[in-house]
Amino acid sequence: MDHMSTQTLPDPSPQQAAGDAAAAAPPHIVIIGAGFGGLWAATGLASASVRLTVIDERNYHLFQPLLYQVATAGLSPADIAEPIRSILARQKNTRVLLGRVTAIDTARRAVLLHGREVPYDQLVIATGARHAYFGHEEWAALAPGLKNIDDATRVRRKILTAFERAEDEPDESERRKLMTFAIVGGGATGVEMAGAIAELSKVALAKDFRAIDTTMSRIILIEAGPRLLPSFPESLSAVAKASLEKLGVEVRLGHAVTQCDADGVALGAERIACRTIIWAAGVEASPASQWLAAAHDKAGRILVERDLTLPGHPEIFVIGDTALVRDSKGRPLPGIASVAKQEGKYVAKAIAARASGRPAPRAFRYRDLGNLATIGRGHAIADFGRVRLKGRLGWLVWSVAHIYFLIGFRSRILVAINWLWSYVTFQRGARLITAGTVDRDR
Amino acid sequence: MDHMSTQTLPDPSPQQAAGDAAAAAPPHIVIIGAGFGGLWAATGLASASVRLTVIDERNYHLFQPLLYQVATAGLSPADIAEPIRSILARQKNTRVLLGRVTAIDTARRAVLLHGREVPYDQLVIATGARHAYFGHEEWAALAPGLKNIDDATRVRRKILTAFERAEDEPDESERRKLMTFAIVGGGATGVEMAGAIAELSKVALAKDFRAIDTTMSRIILIEAGPRLLPSFPESLSAVAKASLEKLGVEVRLGHAVTQCDADGVALGAERIACRTIIWAAGVEASPASQWLAAAHDKAGRILVERDLTLPGHPEIFVIGDTALVRDSKGRPLPGIASVAKQEGKYVAKAIAARASGRPAPRAFRYRDLGNLATIGRGHAIADFGRVRLKGRLGWLVWSVAHIYFLIGFRSRILVAINWLWSYVTFQRGARLITAGTVDRDR
Repeated sequence: MDHMSTQTLPDPSPQQAAGDAAAAAPPHIVIIGAGFGGLWAATGLASASVRLTVIDERNYHLFQPLLYQVATAGLSPADIAEPIRSILARQKNTRVLLGRVTAIDTARRAVLLHGREVPYDQLVIATGARHAYFGHEEWAALAPGLKNIDDATRVRRKILTAFERAEDEPDESERRKLMTFAIVGGGATGVEMAGAIAELSKVALAKDFRAIDTTMSRIILIEAGPRLLPSFPESLSAVAKASLEKLGVEVRLGHAVTQCDADGVALGAERIACRTIIWAAGVEASPASQWLAAAHDKAGRILVERDLTLPGHPEIFVIGDTALVRDSKGRPLPGIASVAKQEGKYVAKAIAARASGRPAPRAFRYRDLGNLATIGRGHAIADFGRVRLKGRLGWLVWSVAHIYFLIGFRSRILVAINWLWSYVTFQRGARLITAGTVDRDR
Repeated sequence: MDHMSTQTLPDPSPQQAAGDAAAAAPPHIVIIGAGFGGLWAATGLASASVRLTVIDERNYHLFQPLLYQVATAGLSPADIAEPIRSILARQKNTRVLLGRVTAIDTARRAVLLHGREVPYDQLVIATGARHAYFGHEEWAALAPGLKNIDDATRVRRKILTAFERAEDEPDESERRKLMTFAIVGGGATGVEMAGAIAELSKVALAKDFRAIDTTMSRIILIEAGPRLLPSFPESLSAVAKASLEKLGVEVRLGHAVTQCDADGVALGAERIACRTIIWAAGVEASPASQWLAAAHDKAGRILVERDLTLPGHPEIFVIGDTALVRDSKGRPLPGIASVAKQEGKYVAKAIAARASGRPAPRAFRYRDLGNLATIGRGHAIADFGRVRLKGRLGWLVWSVAHIYFLIGFRSRILVAINWLWSYVTFQRGARLITAGTVDRDR
């Protein structure tokens, strides 16, 4: 018996559209990836006449906008991650499979994962993006990026271990290297990481060490372009830069990293000696374009039709960071949660319409709901088109928005309490060095 | 310059006892291990005229009594772990070193850690215990135990991954193996793990899977002795057994595990086929007895004088799970938090008395404050000598006591909220499979 048989799935509700015998079984929709795009597509199909399989290589949906807080010891992993199964538990037409996709056979309409296949009638690809090291894959081990929980605990371990080693280091120049942190990339993640490490070193850790003065740490944010946060208006980029500098972060604009090694980074002829490098620069779409042999841009994003289907394959949708979607002025939409969510909802609507014989929705159009980034304690910027916020008001909006968008009542309460506690005490609650003892990193 | 120089330590308060020139510098006390014993010794010396160095191989103090809840996805690691540095930050006579001790040179009075040394005037050894596999060290990889955060996240990953693999497993007998959990050892950890896995499988996960019925999981608790929880009165052991059986746990008393392998465990001629084995049986003291070439019992616990010093070495104290201390009737004290804490406090008093020239305190005497163990949702047993509690009242006492004994306001609030949430929703909040994707465990 084919163990991918759907007999284990409860019978779906009867199809609304009267059809021929072949249409008697509701179509099988496979969604690959349960990030913002895939999960919103899945929940959008909760009451549609389809059978739904959600495949992810991890068992949790991650609220990625707060991942930098896990990396900087402000939150625990479980505060911002929710099991995909729990989220979809009540959705009776849906099953969840944990597994890593290795290929897609578009001719036979099947997804391949570790040696076996899952057939589909329609496919949604929402596999997200990963770090791009611009052809220097060897930098990945030296300069970890921030995409999932394991990345975040690795970065947290690296940062906290650097201070521990500095405390115990007799050599002045080595101590300085250990207390220097280079963050590569001035987008939202880079800005948020730089601000959070500055606060961690200058406030939260300040009283805990005896041999070193953690407030003397150097935090250097390196951006190749002319300004931080290029997706924001220029005035807010300037606000972000000024706020970071007030926190003690050195902002280096117009400098591309030409080398990463165990002793630091090079910006052309200049060298910054440091033991911790954090990568927040390039992203590159998942290998989906290779699975599909599809046309894609330099960052690996797949070119899609205006209804988010793959050209020539109306049964395959590509959404989120994996797709290159343009706005009305022809500019690519940014790789952010709200784009992915809206695309996921759109695709769910399109699939549900097909299943019930209704006409397809009009071409996808992104509705810009605003853009937020935080710089540090009590400081954030927000861009809502005509309305631009900064400082404490921006931060308040940022905090409320992020708690509101978190999935699950429990996460909301836990994050709110952690933030309140940090705000009042200036401390960070999740300062754990896990996965081995300090010796292992030496 | 010797980089272990104490020049980086702030000057201690002047000694109260007038002494000769040699006594001008306060004595240097080194504590190895920041568990309950070491930490209570350290905080007990907060205002003593000593210089204090606390060495641990991990950066956090762990509230071990709740570690099983991390392993069963009820709590996050940071909820029950606190950086040692933070706890001791205000204690100006104290510094914290992260490092692994490799040897002790008692002649030269120095602790050796990765190639360098820390000299001491008086030494407190509080290095705890680790798992004992009764000469079968090869079982360690198959049957992980539960001593630190990394152990707990490993066990959590093993349990959650077993269900994920079962959901996706066509073979009926393999599925049964994946859904069978053997817990070896009927002490407090074994009982608590068995109860928690039963609840996880029969309640929290019940609605999340489609292909498997998690309520059909088998949880088998194996104890070589004649009853569970041998440190409790027999009547409460019987209550615990009955409660576990009501939760669906199979309790096997008087059965010793004779073999562990990838296919399960053997109890003599009988085999239990399972893919998850959790070790909660033997403990063995840390290798401190080898460092000191000291007399010890079979479990590696060092024989100490009635003032907790090492025979022939009044400058070395051994406490907690590393020491064999007997009560007034000659029975060894159990390896529990309250014993370690009282020993830590006693040692601090003895050291402070020496530093100020006061007479030494009388021989150490353990004051039994009671014994608690929980079986599952709304059920625990408590033994306060004449007063014995069980059921919901026992559980209430257990819950309040554990929140009370947690270190830090933040942990108390977070644990209380997690518990309240779990109690109301029957869910478990920290169901993350981290450290790699599911494929890695295959």
